[in-house]
Amino acid sequence: MAVRGPLSGITVVDLSRILAGPYCTLLMAEMGARIIKVEQPGTGDDARAYGPFVKGKSAYFASINRGKESIALDLKMPEDRHTFEKLLEKADVIVENFRPGTMEKLGYGWETLHKTYPNLIYASASGFGHTGPHSKDPAYDMVVQGMGGIMSVTGFPGGQPTRIGMSIGDIGAGLYTAVAVNAALLHRCRTGETTKIDIGMFDCQLALLEGIVARYTVEGEVPGPIGSRHATITPFQAFKTGDGNIIIAAGNDSLFVKLADALGHPEMAQNPDYKTNDLRKLHQARLQDEIEAILAAKTTAQWIEIIGLAGVPCGPINNIAQALQHPQVEARNMLVSVPDGSGGTLKLSGNPLKMSAFADPTTRDAAPDLDANHAAILKELGLD
Amino acid sequence: MAVRGPLSGITVVDLSRILAGPYCTLLMAEMGARIIKVEQPGTGDDARAYGPFVKGKSAYFASINRGKESIALDLKMPEDRHTFEKLLEKADVIVENFRPGTMEKLGYGWETLHKTYPNLIYASASGFGHTGPHSKDPAYDMVVQGMGGIMSVTGFPGGQPTRIGMSIGDIGAGLYTAVAVNAALLHRCRTGETTKIDIGMFDCQLALLEGIVARYTVEGEVPGPIGSRHATITPFQAFKTGDGNIIIAAGNDSLFVKLADALGHPEMAQNPDYKTNDLRKLHQARLQDEIEAILAAKTTAQWIEIIGLAGVPCGPINNIAQALQHPQVEARNMLVSVPDGSGGTLKLSGNPLKMSAFADPTTRDAAPDLDANHAAILKELGLD
Repeated sequence: MAVRGPLSGITVVDLSRILAGPYCTLLMAEMGARIIKVEQPGTGDDARAYGPFVKGKSAYFASINRGKESIALDLKMPEDRHTFEKLLEKADVIVENFRPGTMEKLGYGWETLHKTYPNLIYASASGFGHTGPHSKDPAYDMVVQGMGGIMSVTGFPGGQPTRIGMSIGDIGAGLYTAVAVNAALLHRCRTGETTKIDIGMFDCQLALLEGIVARYTVEGEVPGPIGSRHATITPFQAFKTGDGNIIIAAGNDSLFVKLADALGHPEMAQNPDYKTNDLRKLHQARLQDEIEAILAAKTTAQWIEIIGLAGVPCGPINNIAQALQHPQVEARNMLVSVPDGSGGTLKLSGNPLKMSAFADPTTRDAAPDLDANHAAILKELGLD
Repeated sequence: MAVRGPLSGITVVDLSRILAGPYCTLLMAEMGARIIKVEQPGTGDDARAYGPFVKGKSAYFASINRGKESIALDLKMPEDRHTFEKLLEKADVIVENFRPGTMEKLGYGWETLHKTYPNLIYASASGFGHTGPHSKDPAYDMVVQGMGGIMSVTGFPGGQPTRIGMSIGDIGAGLYTAVAVNAALLHRCRTGETTKIDIGMFDCQLALLEGIVARYTVEGEVPGPIGSRHATITPFQAFKTGDGNIIIAAGNDSLFVKLADALGHPEMAQNPDYKTNDLRKLHQARLQDEIEAILAAKTTAQWIEIIGLAGVPCGPINNIAQALQHPQVEARNMLVSVPDGSGGTLKLSGNPLKMSAFADPTTRDAAPDLDANHAAILKELGLD
């Protein structure tokens, strides 16, 4: 039972593996598209081998491939190539995240495909994109996190290299690819013209770091890691309390006045050193000490109530269990039920793309076993 | 000179401020849409007050508002409301990131707008979305980073809270909003139906953490921070070398064999403890020690050459300056020139949405001064 959504009726032939491409097509599936995963016979998508496993099946794989179909095809074998080409005739979009040049070697580069399938949109997500001198360098999330600069601004001064705790290299690229594919589908709907999309994970890192790039090119100083603070806005960070930490985000002058009131020190907002965000940034260390001296008197929970009532954005630092217990998770259907393929049920992240025109069911279809839809697809293509 | 792209001809009325909404409309501008920023008279978008400044103008603001237009309107004044409503008649999309309920108070909630402007797509990006018991809680990037769980998996065990070095709460929500707006435009093109889009920053955090959510719901153990490592894939992390650090990402068994060869220790890949990714994860600490003992003999640059030649994804940990010097940045046009509004030029992050059907110019229009386009827009609407 596919999800109904703005991409209902759109068919995607998906050659992508592991994460960046599959995350793009997961979002497309959540918006109603039909995703036909074309996998290497034998092992299939590498992600099938990544834990954790439930009864031998990867929950990592299920998380990003739920609701898709799978057909194993060897794109070097004539019969499978014929099947693949029949699939392309039906498809609106092809998504791949091979190393640049791979599709050309297979005879399925954009130039070739565009001539034969003029209605087909081609989306590629690669490490460094399809142009430029380093186009063919291999990349994975971790490599791009290191090379793109995000690790250099995350963590503590003088500390060890710190990875972003999720795969921002891949997921970021997957998101930009989804933005572009939807735009290309719109363009085709409006004009009939199709396009190749060429997303580079490295490019996406520079795009995600837009404010930091601007700061460096304007100020000329290389930004470093600054722990839990925001680089530009003050106070906007984690503070120690009597029993832990609290996040306080006073994003403008009037919120800072409210914060000073809530802390019981309205005079703080009258201090000429703290009058504007730029002055507060200049005197950040002193301001932090003053605020933490006050916060030490109560617990995180007490301060969240007091500061929250004053209308200043604040909150705890939740672990994953605490985050998932937040009442909004259930209210917003952000944990959906997905069959694990062995009689049980997985609880996986829901769809954040909420639209009034479409229902947001609490269940999703299972991730496909490798080649699970082979016979049905052949039949549909008249090849059985 | 607006960029030509898949959204050319689309007009967006943009009430959003600071980052999540404006980042969505920046992407739309990069895809060719016309963005009319409707700002509060007097101060305008709060981001105008965030440094760094160039000749009194915020480069932070310019980075996300380049190429947009600005009109200052007081939505509580009848004359300005009239202008705003004339604008809505022309618009395809309205984007806002107010606290839920604000638009209703102004008389511009979705239900009302949808009746009067049935062709208009309505996109909201708020902290916790427009439904649920905590819908109206205030949020900023930093609050959502704390509450959504991403900080709990970033940094080192027992270490201080670590912020992601960019505004993943806002930028993440901006990306999902852009995915949804493009999908809604496609849906309108295909069916004529419009929709309200309701993006919650908190929801987006859970979506970004999909693999970690799956790991927790399957294993029941609360994931913690693990420094520079990947939670599931091993070896996939930063290692110490003779003179610094290197990222090595051996994402599957055959890459691990190549890595062992490149390190001059092919027997490592024959070790029964290291045969599969799951086994390598189990013996991660020992494997890291063995690899670092070997890496100590040469520099990062030497190892990148050796390991890279072997076809194993690897790379340095670049700071922002080093990242921007990478040859792909120029080759991929990932730093564009934008007038700073005072006779100079800013260098800002380029557009990662590369499409063969559209040029990717090396320059962009300046960010607008507050209310800069008032007279021209009134004239266009016949209100002058």
